Amino acid sequence: MSIDIPDVSGISIGILGGTGDQGKGLARRFALAGHTVLIGSRSAERAQAAAESIGGSVRGSVRGADNPAVAAEADVVIVATPWDGHRATLESLRSELAGKIVIDCVNPLGFDKQGAYMLPVEEGSAAQQAAAVLPDSRVVAAFHHVSAVLLLDPEVEEITLDVLVVGDDREATDTVQALAGRIPGVRGVYAGRLRNAHQVEALTANLISINRRYKAHAGLRITDI
Amino acid sequence: MSIDIPDVSGISIGILGGTGDQGKGLARRFALAGHTVLIGSRSAERAQAAAESIGGSVRGSVRGADNPAVAAEADVVIVATPWDGHRATLESLRSELAGKIVIDCVNPLGFDKQGAYMLPVEEGSAAQQAAAVLPDSRVVAAFHHVSAVLLLDPEVEEITLDVLVVGDDREATDTVQALAGRIPGVRGVYAGRLRNAHQVEALTANLISINRRYKAHAGLRITDI
Repeated sequence: MSIDIPDVSGISIGILGGTGDQGKGLARRFALAGHTVLIGSRSAERAQAAAESIGGSVRGSVRGADNPAVAAEADVVIVATPWDGHRATLESLRSELAGKIVIDCVNPLGFDKQGAYMLPVEEGSAAQQAAAVLPDSRVVAAFHHVSAVLLLDPEVEEITLDVLVVGDDREATDTVQALAGRIPGVRGVYAGRLRNAHQVEALTANLISINRRYKAHAGLRITDI
Repeated sequence: MSIDIPDVSGISIGILGGTGDQGKGLARRFALAGHTVLIGSRSAERAQAAAESIGGSVRGSVRGADNPAVAAEADVVIVATPWDGHRATLESLRSELAGKIVIDCVNPLGFDKQGAYMLPVEEGSAAQQAAAVLPDSRVVAAFHHVSAVLLLDPEVEEITLDVLVVGDDREATDTVQALAGRIPGVRGVYAGRLRNAHQVEALTANLISINRRYKAHAGLRITDI
């Protein structure tokens, strides 16, 4: 089925918590695709160091700054903070993020000797928590299942996987689907409303089990579309 | 990665709630693969009618009986009842199901005008509820995402999808993976412990959203394995 894809090539992308592996990996891939990428962190210095570690080898420009500066400047903002600081970080950035598309890729997971498991979230999911904390933003859940290892691997040119895109605002989910498609091999697939974000986040625990059993960096493909 | 696959070709398969589309679809595919299939229902008559509707065109034998007879006779039992009667049906079959592998494919979903959504389950998931109710059985969660439409379509010879197999007993999950592989095109993939069954069940709501948006019968493939 063909769906009109918005042109997102000129969009600048901010990444809160962009010094972690997932955030840095996404930063690298979007910069490779030519985007201006702003890496955010509580420490502007660490953000700048992360940006410099990526900057040389990509088409787009990569800069680092503290989270508020990134949230204020970027067109679209990805939340890649640890689950631990998720709510507090977003609460502190409510005004900077107002009116923007906010992409939440945080997986609320715990770990023990049997592996990963989902943590209970009062609002239902990290994405719904973001939506509750940011009433003036358009929150979309996506990029939960992309392996940070593959994102950061310079030998990996294509990543074969579908990014499940979950949200209540059609223009916002269309935009995020198009952004997912900027990473070679990746397809953004609309996968329902925000109330169904929880299981997409929690499925990351299953992918971790699959990785352990099959020695892989597992992702998803949706069949028949 | 190669994994030893047990030979399950001689196993007889009982399907509780086998007169519904999902149960009947699985019955048809396992009978096509040469298995003896026992369709169970609260009404033995309706079970027999469902069996007759499949029986002519398959290699294996298909019979219908009431749920207790099927639970007692089959080697492996699939639970495909509506979520509504899930707990009561299993409670009534505890002794028949003792010692057996019980495969739960039930999705606890609600529906409204915005589509499907997950229902809260006290035990965490339908599969965990089954495990709580059936302490002497080996409960495995699997076959949640297989489209009943495709299972029942006589024009469809192969179904391209991975069945996520979730459970705590290695021999049981190995067996269920092998059973999934009896359907042409399908691969059984181990996907974690029973505590991570909930999100596999709930993801069916997202697949329903995908089906609606893309006019498809969506399923999953796991990449990199």
